[in-house]
Amino acid sequence: MMTFDDLYAAAKDLPIIDWHNHLDMQMLAEDKPLGSIYEVWVKADPYKHRAMRICGEPERLITGDAPEAEKWAAWLRTLPKLVGNPLFAWARMELEWLGIDFSHTEAQRHRGGMVFGDLENASLSEWTPSKLLAKFNVEYLSPCVGAENLVDLDALENLERLESQKKPRVVPSLRMNAGEEVAREALERFHAAGCRVVDISVDDAAQLETCYDSLAAVAAFAAAHGWTMLLHLGALRETSARLRAAAGSAGGYAGMRAPVDPAAVAAFLDGLERIGSLPRTILLSLNPEAHAQLAVLAGAFVEEGVPGKVQLGPAWWWCDHAEGIRDVFEKQAAYGVLSTFVGMTTDSRSLLSFVRHDYFRRLFCKWLADKVAAGDFPDDPALLLPLVEKVCYRNARDWVVGSPNQT
Amino acid sequence: MMTFDDLYAAAKDLPIIDWHNHLDMQMLAEDKPLGSIYEVWVKADPYKHRAMRICGEPERLITGDAPEAEKWAAWLRTLPKLVGNPLFAWARMELEWLGIDFSHTEAQRHRGGMVFGDLENASLSEWTPSKLLAKFNVEYLSPCVGAENLVDLDALENLERLESQKKPRVVPSLRMNAGEEVAREALERFHAAGCRVVDISVDDAAQLETCYDSLAAVAAFAAAHGWTMLLHLGALRETSARLRAAAGSAGGYAGMRAPVDPAAVAAFLDGLERIGSLPRTILLSLNPEAHAQLAVLAGAFVEEGVPGKVQLGPAWWWCDHAEGIRDVFEKQAAYGVLSTFVGMTTDSRSLLSFVRHDYFRRLFCKWLADKVAAGDFPDDPALLLPLVEKVCYRNARDWVVGSPNQT
Amino acid sequence: MMTFDDLYAAAKDLPIIDWHNHLDMQMLAEDKPLGSIYEVWVKADPYKHRAMRICGEPERLITGDAPEAEKWAAWLRTLPKLVGNPLFAWARMELEWLGIDFSHTEAQRHRGGMVFGDLENASLSEWTPSKLLAKFNVEYLSPCVGAENLVDLDALENLERLESQKKPRVVPSLRMNAGEEVAREALERFHAAGCRVVDISVDDAAQLETCYDSLAAVAAFAAAHGWTMLLHLGALRETSARLRAAAGSAGGYAGMRAPVDPAAVAAFLDGLERIGSLPRTILLSLNPEAHAQLAVLAGAFVEEGVPGKVQLGPAWWWCDHAEGIRDVFEKQAAYGVLSTFVGMTTDSRSLLSFVRHDYFRRLFCKWLADKVAAGDFPDDPALLLPLVEKVCYRNARDWVVGSPNQT
Repeated sequence: MMTFDDLYAAAKDLPIIDWHNHLDMQMLAEDKPLGSIYEVWVKADPYKHRAMRICGEPERLITGDAPEAEKWAAWLRTLPKLVGNPLFAWARMELEWLGIDFSHTEAQRHRGGMVFGDLENASLSEWTPSKLLAKFNVEYLSPCVGAENLVDLDALENLERLESQKKPRVVPSLRMNAGEEVAREALERFHAAGCRVVDISVDDAAQLETCYDSLAAVAAFAAAHGWTMLLHLGALRETSARLRAAAGSAGGYAGMRAPVDPAAVAAFLDGLERIGSLPRTILLSLNPEAHAQLAVLAGAFVEEGVPGKVQLGPAWWWCDHAEGIRDVFEKQAAYGVLSTFVGMTTDSRSLLSFVRHDYFRRLFCKWLADKVAAGDFPDDPALLLPLVEKVCYRNARDWVVGSPNQT
Repeated sequence: MMTFDDLYAAAKDLPIIDWHNHLDMQMLAEDKPLGSIYEVWVKADPYKHRAMRICGEPERLITGDAPEAEKWAAWLRTLPKLVGNPLFAWARMELEWLGIDFSHTEAQRHRGGMVFGDLENASLSEWTPSKLLAKFNVEYLSPCVGAENLVDLDALENLERLESQKKPRVVPSLRMNAGEEVAREALERFHAAGCRVVDISVDDAAQLETCYDSLAAVAAFAAAHGWTMLLHLGALRETSARLRAAAGSAGGYAGMRAPVDPAAVAAFLDGLERIGSLPRTILLSLNPEAHAQLAVLAGAFVEEGVPGKVQLGPAWWWCDHAEGIRDVFEKQAAYGVLSTFVGMTTDSRSLLSFVRHDYFRRLFCKWLADKVAAGDFPDDPALLLPLVEKVCYRNARDWVVGSPNQT
Repeated sequence: MMTFDDLYAAAKDLPIIDWHNHLDMQMLAEDKPLGSIYEVWVKADPYKHRAMRICGEPERLITGDAPEAEKWAAWLRTLPKLVGNPLFAWARMELEWLGIDFSHTEAQRHRGGMVFGDLENASLSEWTPSKLLAKFNVEYLSPCVGAENLVDLDALENLERLESQKKPRVVPSLRMNAGEEVAREALERFHAAGCRVVDISVDDAAQLETCYDSLAAVAAFAAAHGWTMLLHLGALRETSARLRAAAGSAGGYAGMRAPVDPAAVAAFLDGLERIGSLPRTILLSLNPEAHAQLAVLAGAFVEEGVPGKVQLGPAWWWCDHAEGIRDVFEKQAAYGVLSTFVGMTTDSRSLLSFVRHDYFRRLFCKWLADKVAAGDFPDDPALLLPLVEKVCYRNARDWVVGSPNQT
């Protein structure tokens, strides 16, 4: 019987296609040695900050003016409190990836030991972004950029410099909010820079109707140029005004809205389809209670020769944890066609987050192995091994990289 | 400790009560030999068509004018892509039931083998509907018919001919949409023809209020004549206008609406109860996120001597897959009284779909065995074996067949 | 590898903090010997009544004028029909706790045996409330009382008498509905009586806006006096008017509303935070589909030195069953910080319900052990044993008992 090991063997060495993330193009272009582990791992991560706040740490030790060593200590005492949270699972993987034995130092810490020193001594200065990306076996990277940024020629030049390195291929993707007008010229600049993905934040599903005209203009361009449209649905950005003032607009305090009304999404997609302007589309809901309805709805919008033309995306943002990822597997399988699923992207600001592709692959192979063991899935390598390759790599490559209009 | 095998032994040979399906009464009455496996298995199944479209097959090979052999080949190359989808699980069971070793032929296919020929050679012409029903051990069958159809006397005659065969008992059920007016005379014709189930599509829960008068008239008749009312809640029929035009109104592209508002359902049931017009009722939600709230609500409407008078129904339509079926078990148990659950019905247009009763029974017995193994349920045959019989057969028989007003 | 037994060993003997229940203060104060098992176990339990109604028992045998022996018999024949329902799981634990071997008598019953006699002979008259509480190892008990009741000085005297017994500490909590005005004087009387919890029923989330002023006044008092605010969200109290008339306002027929709109909760909490009036808050949703969104939202409202200041509460009311409890563990872990979770409270009217703390502890330890076995959680006693103690006891004690403003 096929086991996790059999399946994971087919997944673990596949290259990474990361079709949506928030990496800083400037940082990638400069390719300087990394700073301290605090800088790389904690300083700019709003979700670690959020967890520290939930655990009662004062803002002074999070984003305030305390010395770095105190902030690092605050994070270290927070981390073991996070068992169960994806931050904890990722931390274990990230430290392991950096060669730091977390379970060992953890045990030391509980004996009043040397964790802080151990971690502090872990040198990251030998790493550059490009070395990290190479070790992660990243093949394609598509950081998102606002339209107002890419018209900056310097940025484009940086992109070209990155491009010339060839491994990985780095292209910008376009990030916008529903209601934002993006000029045709900007779209063309992005296309010329290799952009093949437009990511649209639709916090409130009503915007699918109220902002229809500007959305349809972008969708039409996307459809005509082989781009993929990401609809990020249902973020609640206004929660604590106090934290918004203290931590900025990306401060880790966003919430989920109520599940998106599927009728509104249906009407939007149908409107585009009627005028021949429906591009390949990935639906991402911040509220997991919408996954079933979106997975079903996606199957109503199809195109000859384009498997999974509209589909549910991977577990997004708050949903990106073990249970949330498994939930998406279940929904894709039960309500859609799992073998068309384009799989994982990090959606992250951190270079270390590429470990999450391995997290995703392990979860997928474990989920498959459990299904085989339960008799739900056939114990057939000829069926399952190609499925692993498709979901963990090949679909994303065919979809984003192999776009017919791309080259 | 009671195992799956112990429990399934009590379930597998029980007769089938299929209290709601879409089988063609005319086809049942004529009882002609079946056509090719393509005709029986693929040609008229909108969900296989949907899966082929999602996989990018052209409409020409689905519902178009291509030769049957090409369409069959398109389905065969689609099927292995559907691992995880209920279509795949059902296909395995259906082929096995027809004596075709799917895993074997599957392996052959991957070696460039003979699957297509194998399946093509599988003769279905020795089967008639009545032979199939007999082999499935179907005891009671209640295909749904629109009110406009049954007033046709020929259909009634066909029904009587079916009736005279006695095994299985075939009676019509009445199918209608919220807002449709059904004349008292038609209700009486259905009742005279043996109908004991009325199935009402309530796509939009607001119809429970806006169409209250016509719904209440049917409910009052149902309550007075021992009928059961099925409320099918929350289908989103308008998705892709393109597919609606291409594939017709039952073309497999429907979606789920947002979960039904339980307050609207409560007000409707309470309105009927106040005027003594609440029949036995089964609540079916297309969106699984409404299952918990409907299972709880059902328990507020009770009647002396009528166990489970109002209850959550089995996993409906898009929810009818392994996880969805298990989800209904959990919800029935946690929020209602599982031992009153009337269990499975196919809701299908296909004669081969009766394998799904076996699928349901296997899932139920596996779920029970897992609960016993985890210590959640007592390891007591005197409790569990009657539960298996009730949920897999006896409740449905007592409910639909044994209705006091029926004979 | 840490097993269930290892983890449960750390949980099972912890004292009980029950920070919200509906025990009768008068009954606690009088501390009389208990009546028959029917009186203690069935007579006043609306959920056993509900289950009997669902199973078709006539009202005469539930709340009517039938002799007690007939009512008892009706409950006994209902109980085995409830396998899977939490009532069944609790009954097993309660009988075991009383020294009655349920599985044994169950087997006897199925042989036409002596269960009824066995149970009847089980004497409860040797028990008083205080003896029960002592055996359950209850350390702190906070029954809720309406504002109109506590201004009664006699009740306060009874409270003082209870107080003098010292083990357990019994203090009132304040129960109110959104829209109810509670005078400052009453709040101060409650505070003087030791109250540290206010429990607010917000059936309809719109009340968070329409009743904002009166809610904000109570919240401001709570924030200033170290109280915790419980928001019980989304009960649907109007279902069957017939049962409301027959069984009273707490007759076990309530339903769930649609999941609460998280934007409404966010606006309410933000409004309080802006004016410095946000107390520690526990969010409880009757509809489990809101758990994810509330767990995320809670993390946006934080305070230095107050871990888990706003948090998702334990599985409430209809959700209080094995799957519901596990669902809350998952949501706390994935979307919040599990180690800050204040854990279980019974929310019950029955003295026997304290077995549910053991039920919760077993489920938590089993859930943790399963996570360790799956490799999701580290196999580290130094991390997991403190987590067990925190969630099963210490967080609630620190939170409610150890409130800085309390003494």
